[in-house]
Amino acid sequence: MAESASKLAAGSAGPPGTAGTVGTVETQYLDLPSPVRLDCGRELFPIRVAYETYGTLASRRDNVILVCHALSGDAHAAGFAKTPPDESTRDGFGAEDRDGTAGKGLGWWDGMIGPGKAFDTDRFFVVSTNLLGGCRGTTGPWSVNPATGKPYGPDFPVITVADMVRAERAFLDVLGIERLAAVAGGSLGGMQALEWAILYPDQVDALVAIASTHALHPQGVAWNSIARDAIMRDPAWQGGRYYGTGRAPEAGMGVARMVGHVTYLSAPALDDKFGRRLQFADDIRYTLTEPEFEVESYLRHQAESFVKRFDANTYLYTSRALTYFDLARQYGGGSLAQALAGVCARTLLIAFSSDWLYPPSASREIEEALSALGKPVEFRVIEAPYGHDCFLLEEARQTPMIRRFLAEGGSAP
Amino acid sequence: MAESASKLAAGSAGPPGTAGTVGTVETQYLDLPSPVRLDCGRELFPIRVAYETYGTLASRRDNVILVCHALSGDAHAAGFAKTPPDESTRDGFGAEDRDGTAGKGLGWWDGMIGPGKAFDTDRFFVVSTNLLGGCRGTTGPWSVNPATGKPYGPDFPVITVADMVRAERAFLDVLGIERLAAVAGGSLGGMQALEWAILYPDQVDALVAIASTHALHPQGVAWNSIARDAIMRDPAWQGGRYYGTGRAPEAGMGVARMVGHVTYLSAPALDDKFGRRLQFADDIRYTLTEPEFEVESYLRHQAESFVKRFDANTYLYTSRALTYFDLARQYGGGSLAQALAGVCARTLLIAFSSDWLYPPSASREIEEALSALGKPVEFRVIEAPYGHDCFLLEEARQTPMIRRFLAEGGSAP
Repeated sequence: MAESASKLAAGSAGPPGTAGTVGTVETQYLDLPSPVRLDCGRELFPIRVAYETYGTLASRRDNVILVCHALSGDAHAAGFAKTPPDESTRDGFGAEDRDGTAGKGLGWWDGMIGPGKAFDTDRFFVVSTNLLGGCRGTTGPWSVNPATGKPYGPDFPVITVADMVRAERAFLDVLGIERLAAVAGGSLGGMQALEWAILYPDQVDALVAIASTHALHPQGVAWNSIARDAIMRDPAWQGGRYYGTGRAPEAGMGVARMVGHVTYLSAPALDDKFGRRLQFADDIRYTLTEPEFEVESYLRHQAESFVKRFDANTYLYTSRALTYFDLARQYGGGSLAQALAGVCARTLLIAFSSDWLYPPSASREIEEALSALGKPVEFRVIEAPYGHDCFLLEEARQTPMIRRFLAEGGSAP
Repeated sequence: MAESASKLAAGSAGPPGTAGTVGTVETQYLDLPSPVRLDCGRELFPIRVAYETYGTLASRRDNVILVCHALSGDAHAAGFAKTPPDESTRDGFGAEDRDGTAGKGLGWWDGMIGPGKAFDTDRFFVVSTNLLGGCRGTTGPWSVNPATGKPYGPDFPVITVADMVRAERAFLDVLGIERLAAVAGGSLGGMQALEWAILYPDQVDALVAIASTHALHPQGVAWNSIARDAIMRDPAWQGGRYYGTGRAPEAGMGVARMVGHVTYLSAPALDDKFGRRLQFADDIRYTLTEPEFEVESYLRHQAESFVKRFDANTYLYTSRALTYFDLARQYGGGSLAQALAGVCARTLLIAFSSDWLYPPSASREIEEALSALGKPVEFRVIEAPYGHDCFLLEEARQTPMIRRFLAEGGSAP
């Protein structure tokens, strides 16, 4: 790990305070030494964790920031992938909807992680893992079930955000990291950050939850349910046992992705980006099956590129976990304040005005609950038109908020 | 036709001004005498039109209101269906999302059409047809193609809202009805009403467009595109030639319906109706495939009931037509004002504050364009939480607006 850190530190460019790149990064893998106990009652073993680190671990091991990814992300959060994306079907995609990064192998939060950036690798040792159940190196439904010698498929246990966090905790144990200077993430990543602060309150100094929530609202539950149904209704899903059959539920996954994609954007963003522009500017073609509008063509393209790089079962499990997530239900007997009563971390919440999937109101509820408990919390709403995607796009405006918040902590060297 | 009118008038209950029912109604059928020329350049023949009428046609034939239905509606707009819905697979459903009416065979706008109601059958002769391309009696992709002796399937011409209106015009010609005291509808029905006022400006005295638009916004285009893709990606769709194969794209249709359903409701309505309530109140079940939240179960139920009563190809054709609809493109060289320049009808626009699929802003654009042209127009926004569905649900609040608007016309006896 120290080796990895120094190697990665060498990838930094420019003097401290000047935003640069962490350089070329190779995803690494680590096997957990013991089973992780899951919310569903089962124990999972073995568990391999895919991860990357950026920056240098301080000798006191007190400068660690764990970055958690969203639904379709992976461990490759920053820098350039060592393995070019087109040489591996499992490599090279960013997060949610970061168009164009896949081809370059750029990490999904590269604008936020690096020397002089929001999560400053001149100061912090940033750790990023692929979440439990993922399809990008960490054990998930595509992994071999030791009991059968075949991929788990639908026999993989149904996991929760808390289970993801327990696996992250066990992973950091192996690295000898006890405390986190901060845990941060957007969307589902923010859920993990919040869960960390509740499950391990004395081990988290600060949490940064961006475009996230304490519980997805019912419409969000509905969209996720529809996306999962689209996958499971595809005959090629085969009850989840499609591995090795030469078929995968690509049709259903495409629909799931298109539904997700529209929920990640705002209606004004779609107006702005596509309007009602036709594919063929002169007029409509009177076709039922082919795209007529640019937005239709764009969605199909999103679907096609996604199904090539993401596992359908991972989508199902991860989507399910994020709909289950409900801090008040899990820890507060229905009360969010009670759920957050044990949080010790300083908290920064960021939301985006046009995000209707994870609206600012959800973050405000967290802020109000923490404030009422007398806990240090800061909530910022960024006015921006691109919906939920803003957490990946509005890096420049998030950066000063996060840098200042982390600087106030004084927990790093 | 006179016979039909008097028969139906006999179904009225209560004195004038007292809201009552039109009684039991049987859908009738009429074959157009000549082909209808379509926007795509093809001519369609034969065309059968399914219709119902309510009230009595005045001797001067000047009290006719044409009511146009939305995506999943039919000719049965008011009263009780003569054929109980469970005796026919094609009978007994209402419109969009009117829960519970299917089993009773009640028309999709029964709350708006009848003696003393918004469209008062004591005064007006209300005509309702199933739209061109429909699956409820009017010629559509499920109809036999005379050239092959088999159902059209994907060989049915791609139709537009203007084509629907041309078929309605041809149908009224057969009935000997030249002028309309009003044309009215919600959603896609409102689009037809607007199109009527442009295509036949000297034949429409008043138009009532509710929860409608002059052009669906790009996000709405996206939702419709996803819904159609969900159907066409279902292998059971078989390129649209599924009739008689014993299979239909029910999986894809279900997904399409669920997507549609969420867009017809507002996020607050889903909060209100379901919240995050679990199916099993005590806790989650850790299941990937079964509904855990009430909203998930509700959506599946909606999907299941819809696929039993609606034809997938009609869904595709109708969805396509409503995304094409764009008055500024069709008639104004990009200018809505120019498109509306020839409108002679008095116009009433109603929108609902929580409708994000057909938002009030779209109706406001129509109002502003008509006002700028010096044309009589009235625009009302009803504050209501149920989203696009309000046009079917908020009958009591629409009724006085519509009654007063129609009374001001003075075109009826």
